[in-house]
Amino acid sequence: MPAGRLWLIPTPLGADSDPRRVLPADTLAAIEPLDYFVVENAKTARAFLKAAGTRAPLQALELRELSEHTPPSRIPELLAPILAGRDGGLLSEAGAPAVADPGAALVAAAHASGVTVCPLIGPSALVLALMASGLNGQRFAFAGYVPTHATERLERLRELERRSARYDETILVIETPYRNQALLEAAIQALAPATCLMVASDLSLASQRIVVDTIAGWRAAARELPKAPAVFGLQAPTAQPPSRGDASARAAPGASSPHHERRTRRR
Amino acid sequence: MPAGRLWLIPTPLGADSDPRRVLPADTLAAIEPLDYFVVENAKTARAFLKAAGTRAPLQALELRELSEHTPPSRIPELLAPILAGRDGGLLSEAGAPAVADPGAALVAAAHASGVTVCPLIGPSALVLALMASGLNGQRFAFAGYVPTHATERLERLRELERRSARYDETILVIETPYRNQALLEAAIQALAPATCLMVASDLSLASQRIVVDTIAGWRAAARELPKAPAVFGLQAPTAQPPSRGDASARAAPGASSPHHERRTRRR
Repeated sequence: MPAGRLWLIPTPLGADSDPRRVLPADTLAAIEPLDYFVVENAKTARAFLKAAGTRAPLQALELRELSEHTPPSRIPELLAPILAGRDGGLLSEAGAPAVADPGAALVAAAHASGVTVCPLIGPSALVLALMASGLNGQRFAFAGYVPTHATERLERLRELERRSARYDETILVIETPYRNQALLEAAIQALAPATCLMVASDLSLASQRIVVDTIAGWRAAARELPKAPAVFGLQAPTAQPPSRGDASARAAPGASSPHHERRTRRR
Repeated sequence: MPAGRLWLIPTPLGADSDPRRVLPADTLAAIEPLDYFVVENAKTARAFLKAAGTRAPLQALELRELSEHTPPSRIPELLAPILAGRDGGLLSEAGAPAVADPGAALVAAAHASGVTVCPLIGPSALVLALMASGLNGQRFAFAGYVPTHATERLERLRELERRSARYDETILVIETPYRNQALLEAAIQALAPATCLMVASDLSLASQRIVVDTIAGWRAAARELPKAPAVFGLQAPTAQPPSRGDASARAAPGASSPHHERRTRRR
């Protein structure tokens, strides 16, 4: 019997976001026949699958957890049903699986066993944040979480700023919602006044908020960040001036505007 | 009159891909009332907008081009209709706008003028490739195009490999379809045998092909790449062994399997 396929299923970026509004028809159609899922958290995954719609009734679905606490030795048993011929889905708590979550270990094991991997289109907070930032989208890096220890955090932010200048790239990081304000304050303390900082929270939700400003602007405005899932982006000013005829050269977003803060309402 | 909003509209990754199958309902609903668009290429944008469906008839839509040849001095006139109160859409040739295309200049100008920027959910070749790679999704970088000159290309690939090892990150690059094979051959020549290389082409299309292997495996298999839009990903082996209980530590994808090549068929 040939092996099944591993479908990579993006999920909405908030519990109130309806999968049938934020996933395309092709993705919903790929989820529908599946009855085996590897998930980060079974409870939230069930709520998602109920809303997305599966052919099999909810109680007939088999869900196994793969979290940051799962030892690598358990990956083979998660892959076993797929090797036995059953299609399976991988999903994370929010957004694209295997990006900024533990799912990549299962994808790697699938490749190593010759299992076909099928990524599906859907929400990704990192891409939405990068698109919305107006910062350099030609070169960027995602650096995960920054350290929580105050001194290490400042040092790490300065290192990321140097990297941004060196490679002329946007750097994205994420933080646990209740630490958003602490990260913002550390960034204001650590980074150069001309460095641009974006904070995008609750992306794709009604409460979406995207703020882009220089560090000098952030300092002057003394904004309070929501305790909501957020992506932070920073871009250090580059040494080279933008060349003529190069529309991709960024004109130091926010530099000409001391404060600009917008809230976006969407259906 | 308050300014309009700038909607960031992802587009399908291939001309045969139906927008109504690969864009979610919320994104299609956001496009529908728009009649002003900033696009990379007016001809392909019209075909997309016809298939996506706009309330206004196609001939009533106003399309202005923003390409790599557009000088920064022309950005204000592209933003002017939005500042005058009209909602506008920004779209690129394929995938997420303002990521790996010239659109970020307009987004930056929008922020600088206080215009609300609304990113929409849709296809992104970079995210699909990263998800599907099984390579490190906790830290990654997109480095754009590699140089076409042979010596510079080898040097750049080695530099990216050093960077991958140093920051323990996956590096993504893109190439013009007809140079895919040349880039693969350069990678085989430049990179260490244990480095992992992914090539994902025609993502989300029926001809989708995702291959992940070590450089040693690529060398042995002598595969021919399709002349199709592709994302290349590389990950150098890291010095540290994976720690116990850390499911996110990658088990050198492909290392245990000399060749694994899959084609994926999707509706």
